Order: sequence, then C-alpha cells, then structure tokens
Amino acid sequence: MSLLVVGTVAFDAIETPFGKTEKIVGGAATYICMSTSFFSRDINLVSIVGDDFPEKEIKKLNKKGVNTSGLQIKKGEKTFFWSGKYHNNMNSRDTIETQLNVLEKFDPVVPNEFKKSEYLMLGNLMPSVQKRVLDQMNKRPKLIVLDTMNFWMDHFMEDLKEALKNVDVLTINDEEARQLSEEYSLIKASRKILKMGPKYLIIKKGEHGAFLFDKNKAFFAPALPLEEVLDPTGAGDSFAGGFIGYIAKTKDISFENMKRAVLYGTVMASFTVEKFGTENLSMTTKEEIDSRLKSLKKISQIS
Amino acid sequence: MSLLVVGTVAFDAIETPFGKTEKIVGGAATYICMSTSFFSRDINLVSIVGDDFPEKEIKKLNKKGVNTSGLQIKKGEKTFFWSGKYHNNMNSRDTIETQLNVLEKFDPVVPNEFKKSEYLMLGNLMPSVQKRVLDQMNKRPKLIVLDTMNFWMDHFMEDLKEALKNVDVLTINDEEARQLSEEYSLIKASRKILKMGPKYLIIKKGEHGAFLFDKNKAFFAPALPLEEVLDPTGAGDSFAGGFIGYIAKTKDISFENMKRAVLYGTVMASFTVEKFGTENLSMTTKEEIDSRLKSLKKISQIS
Repeated sequence: MSLLVVGTVAFDAIETPFGKTEKIVGGAATYICMSTSFFSRDINLVSIVGDDFPEKEIKKLNKKGVNTSGLQIKKGEKTFFWSGKYHNNMNSRDTIETQLNVLEKFDPVVPNEFKKSEYLMLGNLMPSVQKRVLDQMNKRPKLIVLDTMNFWMDHFMEDLKEALKNVDVLTINDEEARQLSEEYSLIKASRKILKMGPKYLIIKKGEHGAFLFDKNKAFFAPALPLEEVLDPTGAGDSFAGGFIGYIAKTKDISFENMKRAVLYGTVMASFTVEKFGTENLSMTTKEEIDSRLKSLKKISQIS
Repeated sequence: MSLLVVGTVAFDAIETPFGKTEKIVGGAATYICMSTSFFSRDINLVSIVGDDFPEKEIKKLNKKGVNTSGLQIKKGEKTFFWSGKYHNNMNSRDTIETQLNVLEKFDPVVPNEFKKSEYLMLGNLMPSVQKRVLDQMNKRPKLIVLDTMNFWMDHFMEDLKEALKNVDVLTINDEEARQLSEEYSLIKASRKILKMGPKYLIIKKGEHGAFLFDKNKAFFAPALPLEEVLDPTGAGDSFAGGFIGYIAKTKDISFENMKRAVLYGTVMASFTVEKFGTENLSMTTKEEIDSRLKSLKKISQIS
C-alpha cells in the first residue's frame, strides 16, 4: 500500500500554560507523516517549504520512510510560520502570528510516481489546494481522508464544501462540526455533514475523546487520561496519521476496522501532547504504541 | 436489599437556551429516587420539605416504591427553592436565586427501620448533614456513595473532607475534581482524591461522559449522543441513582460491576436531560432503559 500525505510543513512557536518554545518544526503534514510512519514505510509527501527549512529535518522524515520528492523547496522564500498561545484549559487558543510565506502561492504538484497512491490524507490546508491534489490523482484512492479547521469555514466555506464532495472521511473538532452543520447536537450535526459528501465523519473532542459516525452507526473512543499535557499542537494531525496509517496497513475500510483505527489515532495523539512539537511522537516505539492501545481498551471496554 | 437516599426535595425554576419553567419539583433526592426506582422497590428517603410541597408529589414517590416516612414536613415553613439559568453551551450555569427555607435548620432523622439499609446514597447536601446521616446508621452499609458540588468546596471544605473519610464512592464533576485536588490532570486529581477516603471516584463530565477510578484502574463511559438536550438539571443525580440502584440490585461491588453501573447511570441521565424536570425520567420504562444500554454499548465497545 502507498499513502499520499498533503499538508503544511512549517515552523511553529507555541506558548501554553506549561511552557514556551522558540521556532520549532511543525505543520500538519509533519505530524501526520511522523505518526503514520509507525504503520507504513511507503509514505509520499506533497508540501512546500522555503530554503530556510533545515535539510536535517527533511532527512528525519526520509529516515521515517517518507518520500519527499513532492516537497517543493522555494529558493529565497520562507517557510510557513504560525505562532499561537493556548488558554488555561488548553481547549482553546489564540493565533499570535501567521506568516503564510511559501503557502501564499502554493500550487501542489503531485509527482507521477505518487499519482497511484492507494490512500490519500489531505491534511489541514486551503480547501482549493486540497482539491487540486485530489484532481491530479490517476485513479481514485481507496480512501480519502480530509482534515480541515474553522479558519477555512470562516473564509472559504464554498471551496470547502466543494472539496468535501469527493472525500470519504472528514475529521474536524466539535466546534467545527457545529459550525459546518449549524446544529448544536453532534448527532444532528453528523447527519447533516454526512449529506455533504463524506461517508464517515470523525469529530475530535480533544481531551474528551473522538466520535466516528457513518449514516447508521456511531463509535466513541475516550482520550487516554494523561498525567501531563504540555502542548496540544499537532494532536489532531497525529490522530489522523494514526487513523489512516492503520487503515492503510490493514487494507480494511470497514466500519469495524475504522473503530480500531480511531483507537490507534487516539494513542498517537496521546504521545504528541505530552511534549512540545513532534519530539515525543517521533521518539515513541511500536511497543509503547501497543502498550497504550492496551490501556485504552482497558479503560473503555467491559468484559 | 434496601437503599437509603438522603438529599434535597425541592422546587426549581430553570432557564436554558431552549426554554424556561415555572416552579417545578426538583431536588437531588427526587431525581435519585426516580432513577433508582427502576432498579429497586425498597428505597428509603430522608429529606425535608415545607407544607407548601404538594402531597400528590409525595404520592408519586410512594408509587415508585419510595418509603417517605423519613421525609420531614415542616408546618408553616417553605420548601427549598433554587432557580438557575444555563449558558449557551449548557455546561455552565448561574444561580439566580437560592431560598434555603427548611434546609436552613435541617437536622436529618433516620427512622429506626432505615438504620440497617444496606446501601446509602448521600445526595448533594451540606457535608455536615451528610455526615449526621452516616453517624445514625446501626451498621456500616455495604456501599456508601456521596455526591457533592463546588458550593460546599467553596464554603465548607473542611466539613466535606471530614465526610469523605467514611465514604466508598465520591461522585463529582471534572471542575470539582480539579478544585478538590488542586490538580489539573484528572489522573493526578483522582490519585489525590482517592487518598482522602473514597475507594472509588466517579468524575462526571456531562456531555463528555464519565470516568470511574480506583487506585489502580480506570474506566470511561461516553454520554449517549442525544438529538436534543433541553435541561441538564438533575443529570448527575439521575446518574448516581442509576449507579447505586444497579449495584444494589446486583449486590456486587466489584470494579467490573461498577463499570456496568456507570453505564446504567449514563443511561438514566440521558432520559433526564431530554426534558425539563423529572418528567422524562419518571415516565421511562425498563424496555427503554435496556434499549439505550444496548446503544451505549454499541457506540463504546469493539468486537
């Protein structure tokens, strides 16, 4: 199986009640690739950076099995930069600064060798860019997952709705589900959203877990209760990476298997939030993943 | 088995984004009794009202199997009254008015016939009153569950900590767990609280489900996703009633059985929040309870 990942590769500067970072490597695609690399070694990345992006960071991705031949490096330009500050409860944040830089004119080019990828993860990006990637595929992938956020709903709702028509799984958080559907009840919201195109909807609730819906069924996985949460940045991307990584590995897109994929997504996100940036996620092991999966089952399953 | 329930029987006036009530019957003990009546017909109530409390409401409780010989009716005095307004997200509320009335000098008297009750549910009340009930028992009940709230933590923390020393299960919400433990992480909070006396801790997170902890284990049950939530008042009490009702019915206080009891508590709360007051809860049936339990298992269990 091959998995195409599209999304930002970026610099972040993050402040939470528990600390603060200088410019560190972040971006949706970075987290997705790091997370999914524990399930697959055939990962194709389409993204863009400036020539200020350290080569050793690209090498790190390569070592994880990520083919970066679709990563455009723009000479004389700067990498996308985001800085944000989380509020006390860590459930909300303010954007302090956004420098689009290379993203401003990002025209994604899918290399020929990537065009037959069987699984497609459209990480959080401008919806029209996500759609341009989709349009370049030779063959419809077996599963297309799209992640997005409130910013695109605020400013590019029509583009987003257009992109949604062609995806299988949409991942958003609860506030975004309410915004997109104009319904408060998540049951009602899911019903409306599943009429917009996606056959499956994942509603991420951060520390409160995640819902998976299709037209007739629902599944819920709690977040792993953690001793320490330092930085929620990238949790949703790590979740998505674990989710699609597990599906691609098992080649099973049934609802039952998606339930297991949601558990893996949950586990991957739990590593990310324990430290700032991708550090903890990238350093974990298959043994630790399995051990946390076991814990997650233990707290959610009855015998 | 016999179950002693202590708590308020009251009038409420409630406003939510979805409507408003006149004075209706409420109170922790009312919700607990209504909820637990689906599991047991041997319920003993200790509480207090004024002579403004309608006799037909007492009869309603009797019909549900509640022995009200421990319900003091104070001549010439008025029943406890609370009015509150929920915010848009229904997760927080403001108290508009509290008239303590009969509660001001409530000295609970446990009738002799109640003193051997095998299960004890100390509903939300002044901690010193909860303790006075406990002290009147002839024999330690098999299981003592105590529910409380932030108000008592703000003003009577020492009394509360004294009461906690003698209980088996404490039920509070996530904010209260953080306040009581002075820890943000619920894992750390549970560890601290379990050193204060209770052997088990239930952290209720409203629409986000509920955690059960003991010293070594944790279990989480999601809330049932509902089409409509009109009024969260009494949800926690209905949860507690379902929890202790199921335990009393099955006479099994193992952690495994408590997991099932948490599911039943969750189901009972789901009925309460769909309508204002106790209406929906009191009108449900065993068949509906079983059907919702099945749904709850379906969304939370993997095969």
